[in-house]
Amino acid sequence: MVDMKKLSSPAVGQVVVQDAYFAPRIEANHEATIPASLKFSRDTGRIEAFKLNWKPGRPNQPHIFWDSDVAKVVEGMAYDLVLHPDDKKLSRELDKIVALIVSAQQPDGYLNTHFTTVEPENRFKQLNWKHELYCCGHLIEASIAHFQATGKRNFLECMCRYADYVDSVFGRGKGKMRGYPGHEEIELALMKLAETTGEKRYAKLAQYFVEERGRKPNYYVDKEDVNEGALINLQAETTVRERRDAVGHAVRMMYLSCAVADVAAANDDGELLARCADIAHSVAQKRMFITGGIGSSPNGEAFEHDYKLDNLLAYAESCASMGLVWFMQRMHNITGDGAYMDILERALYNGALAGVSLSGDHFFYRNPLRSSVDSPYIRERVEWFGCSCCPTNYCRFLPQIGSFLWSESEREVRLNIPAASTFRSGERAIQVSGGYPYKGDVTVRFLANGEYTFAFRVPNWCRRYTVKVNGSPLFTMPESGYVKITRVWKKGDKIDIRFAVAVEVMRANPAVDDDAGKVALQRGPLVYALESIDNGPLLHNIALVDDGAFRTGPVKGLPEGTVAVSGHAVEIIRPGDDLYSNAKPSVKKRSFTAIPFALWQNRGPAEMQVWTREWPGPGKITDNR
Amino acid sequence: MVDMKKLSSPAVGQVVVQDAYFAPRIEANHEATIPASLKFSRDTGRIEAFKLNWKPGRPNQPHIFWDSDVAKVVEGMAYDLVLHPDDKKLSRELDKIVALIVSAQQPDGYLNTHFTTVEPENRFKQLNWKHELYCCGHLIEASIAHFQATGKRNFLECMCRYADYVDSVFGRGKGKMRGYPGHEEIELALMKLAETTGEKRYAKLAQYFVEERGRKPNYYVDKEDVNEGALINLQAETTVRERRDAVGHAVRMMYLSCAVADVAAANDDGELLARCADIAHSVAQKRMFITGGIGSSPNGEAFEHDYKLDNLLAYAESCASMGLVWFMQRMHNITGDGAYMDILERALYNGALAGVSLSGDHFFYRNPLRSSVDSPYIRERVEWFGCSCCPTNYCRFLPQIGSFLWSESEREVRLNIPAASTFRSGERAIQVSGGYPYKGDVTVRFLANGEYTFAFRVPNWCRRYTVKVNGSPLFTMPESGYVKITRVWKKGDKIDIRFAVAVEVMRANPAVDDDAGKVALQRGPLVYALESIDNGPLLHNIALVDDGAFRTGPVKGLPEGTVAVSGHAVEIIRPGDDLYSNAKPSVKKRSFTAIPFALWQNRGPAEMQVWTREWPGPGKITDNR
Repeated sequence: MVDMKKLSSPAVGQVVVQDAYFAPRIEANHEATIPASLKFSRDTGRIEAFKLNWKPGRPNQPHIFWDSDVAKVVEGMAYDLVLHPDDKKLSRELDKIVALIVSAQQPDGYLNTHFTTVEPENRFKQLNWKHELYCCGHLIEASIAHFQATGKRNFLECMCRYADYVDSVFGRGKGKMRGYPGHEEIELALMKLAETTGEKRYAKLAQYFVEERGRKPNYYVDKEDVNEGALINLQAETTVRERRDAVGHAVRMMYLSCAVADVAAANDDGELLARCADIAHSVAQKRMFITGGIGSSPNGEAFEHDYKLDNLLAYAESCASMGLVWFMQRMHNITGDGAYMDILERALYNGALAGVSLSGDHFFYRNPLRSSVDSPYIRERVEWFGCSCCPTNYCRFLPQIGSFLWSESEREVRLNIPAASTFRSGERAIQVSGGYPYKGDVTVRFLANGEYTFAFRVPNWCRRYTVKVNGSPLFTMPESGYVKITRVWKKGDKIDIRFAVAVEVMRANPAVDDDAGKVALQRGPLVYALESIDNGPLLHNIALVDDGAFRTGPVKGLPEGTVAVSGHAVEIIRPGDDLYSNAKPSVKKRSFTAIPFALWQNRGPAEMQVWTREWPGPGKITDNR
Repeated sequence: MVDMKKLSSPAVGQVVVQDAYFAPRIEANHEATIPASLKFSRDTGRIEAFKLNWKPGRPNQPHIFWDSDVAKVVEGMAYDLVLHPDDKKLSRELDKIVALIVSAQQPDGYLNTHFTTVEPENRFKQLNWKHELYCCGHLIEASIAHFQATGKRNFLECMCRYADYVDSVFGRGKGKMRGYPGHEEIELALMKLAETTGEKRYAKLAQYFVEERGRKPNYYVDKEDVNEGALINLQAETTVRERRDAVGHAVRMMYLSCAVADVAAANDDGELLARCADIAHSVAQKRMFITGGIGSSPNGEAFEHDYKLDNLLAYAESCASMGLVWFMQRMHNITGDGAYMDILERALYNGALAGVSLSGDHFFYRNPLRSSVDSPYIRERVEWFGCSCCPTNYCRFLPQIGSFLWSESEREVRLNIPAASTFRSGERAIQVSGGYPYKGDVTVRFLANGEYTFAFRVPNWCRRYTVKVNGSPLFTMPESGYVKITRVWKKGDKIDIRFAVAVEVMRANPAVDDDAGKVALQRGPLVYALESIDNGPLLHNIALVDDGAFRTGPVKGLPEGTVAVSGHAVEIIRPGDDLYSNAKPSVKKRSFTAIPFALWQNRGPAEMQVWTREWPGPGKITDNR
């Protein structure tokens, strides 16, 4: 039985992020991501849709997932308002959209623009792929964020009425539907709503949705004629208590797992938590790219079988990596195990951030680990997608970053990720400074007195570290990845931590076909990638020399402080233009330069690769530099 | 302007194939492939369909491509009858099916089971994807083969009537349709029909179909609302005179190119021939796997852009490689250039034969160069496909192999490929013996007197060869790949050729991403592959040592005489079960064994790979043999 520590994450606003890696992203969200998402939501009719004035034949027919897009932007605006409380324009805009959403509620509590205007006759009839309960979930999450940001209850109460209506329709009671959502989301939203309102009925409804999923007789097989492949894609081929592997649509798998973890924690349900641990293991040890990207297959945006991790084909949807972060946040908070935070850190610093440009207004939906003309084109971020889940998810994900860095309980404050930031909770106030993730120096300053355990994580990539408390060396072994120091902290107390940050040459499990003979570079939590901008084209002909002589330095065109990794390489070129030939290749010495994966494609279009072949290779070196 | 030599290929029956590589395949076709195809054609209702008694609601609704399947089996039976003239059962069965086909002809000459019984109202209305003219083309080819094998004219005359009807419907004349086939095939069939009957109208109709294709205003855009992607797939986005690259559906591209070459030759049209040369160059130098497999993409069974040649994803349809053989046969015969025969030989010995089991009754549709659980499953040949173009194509392809080995003109006999065989044409009779392709010893014996040039090809894989004519060494340079010896040949004259057959370590053009750092082995015309049966699983962890110390030997479970290639290799394994780790890999010495690619998966299910990584690699050798 897993011990449930039940830590909690600080709310948005309790942590001010001050580092050079995340803080500019959070600011770009305020300056660019939210405004751009609002603009596109308006231009495409997503917001107007809540006026419910669409008629057949008119443009901008409300789409099944539009409500979720607006909800995610609203949720992001609410968090952003917490971080920018003086932004009157933002505040007005938020309340205006919220009022419009609330106005779309039907007398019975139902609220969905598509099913109210386009096909009212099909309400709750095509749960498997029409995103109806998914939209409801996102609206619930938005309403909670709005309430927490503004104290206003209008949206929250509106969504309680909708949740009450959903509760009256679904469940095991007489006359109720035994259905559950095709795309999970409402489950975790209902758990949050129960926590926010104290209303246990919402948690029960969430638990019903979670536990009914995949039960026999199977709702989707019986009522919606869903075939086996599609059942797997939406995690309805078995129950959450029987599932051991992460399967199907990756975002759905993550959102479901968040809810299962929430239900496990709420009920002290060790069996459910053990299943969550199985899923986390399946993801992180068998089905995850080194970037924290998940969902290998473009076919259904889905998990593949174990070790099927093709770099060029990789789907690795931005939203899936965000979902992994949210799932790992829960697993860490429930178990206190730093191993989940190691996975969170990998996804957060790499795969989850790669989907948004430094400017905040260009996005990747897919995040393969190789981009070339074979991709089948050199990939570039774009301004918006018709299916715009990723940009709108960034609106709400980026302001939450501070919440991932810290956790706390009554007796403990945890520094999960030592990015420069200030944490405040009640009487507790702690400031972290330093150059993380590029540098390993971390200074922790206590800004207030208090008796509790201060814990900091020793990342799994770190081979050596030193700790000084008020100048005195401390020697202590980490427990489950955390060094714990319990004392009566005084204002002015200081802990100096030095994590050794070195370039690590990473190799994949021998079962991964596409990574055989290749290495990936990692430095601290950052996974590195080669871009053709620094290395020239046809990156696959570069082979890296693992001689330990890596150099770090600045890189042109990326933010100040960004650390590039350079080193020795060779370029192996077979002479001649023939498609195939027995000519011996020549091997030329050259260097390579790699940049953090999450920052690629911020200097124009480029080839990119994370996994690079190793040399020594097949021939003699011709030194013609 | 390309010089047109205009050689011709011997008809089936003029060459008796006697080698150990092809001859058993031709016999397996007689014993297994044709019987199996007949059985499945019967069981699925394909033959019954010609009774035209299908009614809505009944099983076995005639499919749009069924006629072509039966036609290809019939064509194969006719060739097979030529090779087995005493097989009365085969003869009776052939005539019976032919009579049934002929009986399905409509009063106006039209003959198509699907459009006569299922949707008569749609005759010639969905040319782009309903295979109507394609089926007609295959029936024409079958009728010619039947006539040539039996001398009976019933089927041939039936198809002349159908061709006359098609001629009355399509063309540029008043009241005619300006359409052309979605899937090319009838063009080359009509050229053959013109040659067989002497009726020039059929050649004109073929030329109309060839030249109308892709003209503006575009028939498919205007009449059938075909989009740009689909237009490219069926080679209708431009005209044959403007096309420089092989694009779209690979089988279609090949069948079209055969027809273009036929039209070029018939009209001495140098421009068209130059375009054929462009297509051949595009295929062989930019878009072909080393096995002679073509059509990289499963998406539309199509050519990809230059150098996009993923081994795992490779579509490389069996029929496409057969199509490449037929196209190269024409290009060689028109130009006399051995370079086309080099491509033909590569496709014939490797990609085209890989699609059929040694037993003759199991088939691959796709022929990727890597098979593993990532494929997404270990590939195995199957007995039949719903879309059964490949098995039925083998029925007619295998008996034609002898025709590829030789060419002739009035003044010249050419030994294109020196597999053991006997060639007879009029007064000319020549016997070739030896162990080709496994051995390079070739003995040519003249069985009759005659004055002409005897030419033999020096394959492009061959670095050294010697020739003796009646025991005297001959030193002469090949012209366009052929050594030519002109004299008055006497019965009993003998030429001894010794081609040096060595293991060649082949590397791909640096632009091919998936082959970077990898080598493929070739010995003579045979491309080799590693199978897990000989090497154990996870073939991607094996790296081959190119030290020149290759050994050849027999291999268990494959036909006597099959030559396996063994050599030194290492296996590079990173310790630990982690998905990613910075642990250094260990390198263990081991050996490897490779077998001819075309023979893989004849000893049960297996992993397979053609391209293997090269070592020396990243660590020290641990010798623990």
